[in-house]
Amino acid sequence: MSKSDAAELVVAARRRRGLTWSAIADELGAPPVWTTAALLGQHPLTREQAERACTLLGLEAAVAESLQQQPSRGTDPALMSDPTIYRFTEALSVYGPALKELIHEEFGDGIMSAINFRVDVARRPDPDGDRVVVTFDGKFLDYRW
Amino acid sequence: MSKSDAAELVVAARRRRGLTWSAIADELGAPPVWTTAALLGQHPLTREQAERACTLLGLEAAVAESLQQQPSRGTDPALMSDPTIYRFTEALSVYGPALKELIHEEFGDGIMSAINFRVDVARRPDPDGDRVVVTFDGKFLDYRW
Amino acid sequence: MSKSDAAELVVAARRRRGLTWSAIADELGAPPVWTTAALLGQHPLTREQAERACTLLGLEAAVAESLQQQPSRGTDPALMSDPTIYRFTEALSVYGPALKELIHEEFGDGIMSAINFRVDVARRPDPDGDRVVVTFDGKFLDYRW
Amino acid sequence: MSKSDAAELVVAARRRRGLTWSAIADELGAPPVWTTAALLGQHPLTREQAERACTLLGLEAAVAESLQQQPSRGTDPALMSDPTIYRFTEALSVYGPALKELIHEEFGDGIMSAINFRVDVARRPDPDGDRVVVTFDGKFLDYRW
Amino acid sequence: MSKSDAAELVVAARRRRGLTWSAIADELGAPPVWTTAALLGQHPLTREQAERACTLLGLEAAVAESLQQQPSRGTDPALMSDPTIYRFTEALSVYGPALKELIHEEFGDGIMSAINFRVDVARRPDPDGDRVVVTFDGKFLDYRW
Amino acid sequence: MSKSDAAELVVAARRRRGLTWSAIADELGAPPVWTTAALLGQHPLTREQAERACTLLGLEAAVAESLQQQPSRGTDPALMSDPTIYRFTEALSVYGPALKELIHEEFGDGIMSAINFRVDVARRPDPDGDRVVVTFDGKFLDYRW
Amino acid sequence: MSKSDAAELVVAARRRRGLTWSAIADELGAPPVWTTAALLGQHPLTREQAERACTLLGLEAAVAESLQQQPSRGTDPALMSDPTIYRFTEALSVYGPALKELIHEEFGDGIMSAINFRVDVARRPDPDGDRVVVTFDGKFLDYRW
Amino acid sequence: MSKSDAAELVVAARRRRGLTWSAIADELGAPPVWTTAALLGQHPLTREQAERACTLLGLEAAVAESLQQQPSRGTDPALMSDPTIYRFTEALSVYGPALKELIHEEFGDGIMSAINFRVDVARRPDPDGDRVVVTFDGKFLDYRW
Amino acid sequence: MSKSDAAELVVAARRRRGLTWSAIADELGAPPVWTTAALLGQHPLTREQAERACTLLGLEAAVAESLQQQPSRGTDPALMSDPTIYRFTEALSVYGPALKELIHEEFGDGIMSAINFRVDVARRPDPDGDRVVVTFDGKFLDYRW
Amino acid sequence: MSKSDAAELVVAARRRRGLTWSAIADELGAPPVWTTAALLGQHPLTREQAERACTLLGLEAAVAESLQQQPSRGTDPALMSDPTIYRFTEALSVYGPALKELIHEEFGDGIMSAINFRVDVARRPDPDGDRVVVTFDGKFLDYRW
Repeated sequence: MSKSDAAELVVAARRRRGLTWSAIADELGAPPVWTTAALLGQHPLTREQAERACTLLGLEAAVAESLQQQPSRGTDPALMSDPTIYRFTEALSVYGPALKELIHEEFGDGIMSAINFRVDVARRPDPDGDRVVVTFDGKFLDYRW
Repeated sequence: MSKSDAAELVVAARRRRGLTWSAIADELGAPPVWTTAALLGQHPLTREQAERACTLLGLEAAVAESLQQQPSRGTDPALMSDPTIYRFTEALSVYGPALKELIHEEFGDGIMSAINFRVDVARRPDPDGDRVVVTFDGKFLDYRW
Repeated sequence: MSKSDAAELVVAARRRRGLTWSAIADELGAPPVWTTAALLGQHPLTREQAERACTLLGLEAAVAESLQQQPSRGTDPALMSDPTIYRFTEALSVYGPALKELIHEEFGDGIMSAINFRVDVARRPDPDGDRVVVTFDGKFLDYRW
Repeated sequence: MSKSDAAELVVAARRRRGLTWSAIADELGAPPVWTTAALLGQHPLTREQAERACTLLGLEAAVAESLQQQPSRGTDPALMSDPTIYRFTEALSVYGPALKELIHEEFGDGIMSAINFRVDVARRPDPDGDRVVVTFDGKFLDYRW
Repeated sequence: MSKSDAAELVVAARRRRGLTWSAIADELGAPPVWTTAALLGQHPLTREQAERACTLLGLEAAVAESLQQQPSRGTDPALMSDPTIYRFTEALSVYGPALKELIHEEFGDGIMSAINFRVDVARRPDPDGDRVVVTFDGKFLDYRW
Repeated sequence: MSKSDAAELVVAARRRRGLTWSAIADELGAPPVWTTAALLGQHPLTREQAERACTLLGLEAAVAESLQQQPSRGTDPALMSDPTIYRFTEALSVYGPALKELIHEEFGDGIMSAINFRVDVARRPDPDGDRVVVTFDGKFLDYRW
Repeated sequence: MSKSDAAELVVAARRRRGLTWSAIADELGAPPVWTTAALLGQHPLTREQAERACTLLGLEAAVAESLQQQPSRGTDPALMSDPTIYRFTEALSVYGPALKELIHEEFGDGIMSAINFRVDVARRPDPDGDRVVVTFDGKFLDYRW
Repeated sequence: MSKSDAAELVVAARRRRGLTWSAIADELGAPPVWTTAALLGQHPLTREQAERACTLLGLEAAVAESLQQQPSRGTDPALMSDPTIYRFTEALSVYGPALKELIHEEFGDGIMSAINFRVDVARRPDPDGDRVVVTFDGKFLDYRW
Repeated sequence: MSKSDAAELVVAARRRRGLTWSAIADELGAPPVWTTAALLGQHPLTREQAERACTLLGLEAAVAESLQQQPSRGTDPALMSDPTIYRFTEALSVYGPALKELIHEEFGDGIMSAINFRVDVARRPDPDGDRVVVTFDGKFLDYRW
Repeated sequence: MSKSDAAELVVAARRRRGLTWSAIADELGAPPVWTTAALLGQHPLTREQAERACTLLGLEAAVAESLQQQPSRGTDPALMSDPTIYRFTEALSVYGPALKELIHEEFGDGIMSAINFRVDVARRPDPDGDRVVVTFDGKFLDYRW
């Protein structure tokens, strides 16, 4: 079973069972963004994680097997223009070169790792309307020959 | 003078004068990412901000005038494949759909605004290597007819 | 069932039953453009709306379930070159920068929201040939840090 | 002088003289969106309009000559991803097929002309935040062999 | 049944029954290019036309129903590079700007409609080799605000 | 001098001198579409044609020399989305496969040559609005090994 | 049956029966490149050719029928980057403009026909390693109005 | 001086002096296609070749220097759609997979080298119209680990 | 059976049987990168290799047959943006022109063959973290007419 | 001065002075690929390196200043199709997925860093023709949350 087929089954089962992504993450003892990304096919689960997730969601063994496979990572470009995702792309298009300047100013020549990396999403209450706060947190890697 | 010509002059003057982006931001009393983005051409400065920046950098009035103009926002795609910027794009390609799921789970159907929005970059010390922490913070907007 | 499969079934049932989109919208108590877009897969319906629509159209529960799902929004680019849709794209290509200038002139630096947003289509009689009048109506959002 | 060079001179002169697009439109006795689009290079002005605009803006005869030329219409795609313009593109991507359905339902098989066409932008006060209202108004043309 | 599936069935039935497109057009009392385009999915047929075509071709009612549907018009770009079609594209690439100049010279600022439009193909005998003569005939539409 | 620089000088001189493309074509004793395309850089002129055109337009010898050069044919894709030119592209997208079917039906397997080829544009009066009639006329070439 | 499905069956049957493309070409009395291209879906076979090929390959009548159909010519771009095919594309990218210059020098303004055209592939022994010799042979067509 | 600037000067000087590419090739004692490609910037000339070519064409030393530089090979894609060049691309799109099959059949798994490679263009008289004969001749390279 | 279907079966069987790619390579007596690439569909196996691989993996004869077929080489571009693969692409984007300079400096005008070519991947222990060492080793081919 | 202007001056001065890249690298005490890439604009030099390089090459201070700037890394895609560079891209297209499999097999889920990374090019004598040996050597980074 391909990881995209497994993801579709997970999404449908989650809705049918009325489970939140956070509840599944709690069950697996893993962070919510990581767990959601993994169940959508972007990270391999361990056997134990895969089996607990499938038990929780009532899914067959073939799904659990698929969830443990090494993924080929990345998202279909057609999905990247969904407005909820596109706003991140737009923000990078406006602020990307400024982030690059400030990373180099603070750390020197290098990058924020996207591998030794975590991302969290949180809600911050605000009288003008609550805010989505997304934190990208990656190890700095300097260009080193 | 186009905003990209103004940005080139700012970048060169900053280096020549040995100023940091943060020092310029302090001088303008504005946040570092906003200030850097604005000086690179992505936001209009007020007349006062533009003039203080140009005095600090030793740049002529035409630059100050250009910095106040309304920009057409966005970055040349060729620059987006620079590795320091690309890692953000890669992270979105891996985590974008998971972020979408979790925003909808927490807030309902809608988006994180990229307009009523701020972004910060910080350094977090870590024994395994310091970390780049970039926070995207935007007002939640629900689909509302 | 995917939302595109659901949309195809809706389109076919609508024709078979001889219902107009407006009649369906009336039944749901929702605006016509919103309703049509939602049934084509661009907005989630509430459970009640989905069930009333399916009853009206004689469609099974799986369709109603699909219509309530959170969509990934956007249209296959191949459909955007259909002449009836393309004329809007062409108009934006001719008038987009002028609209940007006038929005900034009237409101300042910011955008028309496409989320807190409504769109209507109407017929205006005209002796030279009736006219299609499409109104885009979105909340102004100013760039605010 | 190319129309894009003329447009740059118009934009700079307008700012220097502190004129609004609406004031220029009034001077020419033409609608604001049409006037702005024409001065940005998307429509030819009459000799009289071109000369009045250049007198108002203090621009030389070569600009007036350029403004009268027949344009090759369209906007550089790089400018279409500016957020203020992009929101219209996004709205079409979400609502385009619904607009097509409703145009066919009301008028039959055909299109809204983008040639026999006008577009207006207005501000509508709203306690929740004022709204940008953009009206596309084109003659219906039916497919006719 | 999708219009492309219907088109495939039409093409196969036409060959099997040894019918020409012209003969089908005669049967429908419609012009050959229009009829061929409609049967390939680019125009809706009336109920009567659809039923006569299906009777002639020995096709089931589902095909007739599909042929009456409102199409989303346009051709898969992969098919546009077939040499027989590509020569038209090449001719436009060589002569397009010249046609634009001459249309404006003769008619003023505007376009040839592709909606109030007909196209015919004919054979013109020629001692040096017979010629394909394709006539595009569309109503002139002037830019009118 | 490049052919595009020469074309710009031709276009400007033509307007300054108040000459029509047809008048220039008459002077050269050549068809209007051919002449316009050649002066825009798509065909080489003979020395005599080039010199007569430059005398008529008051242009220097370097232009005449450029007009005689062998062109690299084709039009910048950005110009192909001008609405006056785009309508031809749209018509091909709607009718291209039908034209292919009818060319094969009438002539067998082959193409309409775009080299042994002529194209004319004419005005046909019509009480409902005059019509633009563009005729593509190319020798049929059969696939022959 | 589509021509690509037919091609797959031909390719599989050829291997199963241990036949070379040249042997099939001999059987059909047609040149090898033409025959191979036709069986891969780029040319229509006559009824007789199609039936002999299917007899030789042990394929059913539906394949023979498909092989006689008029093709939509061209190859999926994904296949064009196969190294064996790409070397031809690379050679054109290096030598294309030189071939154009020399064709014009020898023949005048025009093209090598790709319709009245044949191509052969041969092996030329060479002590440094045998050589692939591919000959493109097309009728010269001069630009003729 | 860039190789494209040098090529423009060569092309202009060749025309001014009335020299053919073949005459220049003779002077250099090199094959015509190689010589033309080299002068257009696709191969480095030796110092002696570069100086003889520049003497023949009356060009300055800077051109000779540029002609000796190592090129970055390839042609601007915009030039590849010129009809004289495009016919080769079209032929590859029709015959590429067949050439691949026959190369593998004759030589085994491998490619025709585009490096150890020559290409010639010749005229073959034919009562039906003379023919352009272009021969691609490259060493076979087998996949060898 | 297509080579991509065969590859999927190989990948699944390998995991099910707990075999490493290296163990399969050992069994075939072939290098690991070559073997892995071949089983993923990029090289034809000999009959003996194909049968041994299928025996080892418990796969049916149809897979073995597919593995012996001549492939159309290349990878779906969507897979090339997987981060593990993308880092090689990024390295080429940063170092490609430098590699070209140094190859020409050492070897003269020519290329590293990608056909007479091998690639190995190894682990090099390093106290700062073990390293992935990938060696591209291809015969130098000089441009030779 | 932009880094691409500086690179052009470096390339020209190197040829004029008859220096090899390796000699320049020796002078800077840095590896050849790193040095060449840095001088072509892909890495910042230290002030001392930049000044030594400019003294060696006889270039002005503005070049040295440019060479110290932080680059925006990456290569114009047009240059990536040069055959000497393209062979690397082709090798990745053939072997990329196999490399990914073997990296995961040996190291687990992660990547070869392109930042903590070095690349070398060497000549390996071989009786069948010397070989280009390019070694990519990057730290393994495991996906770590």
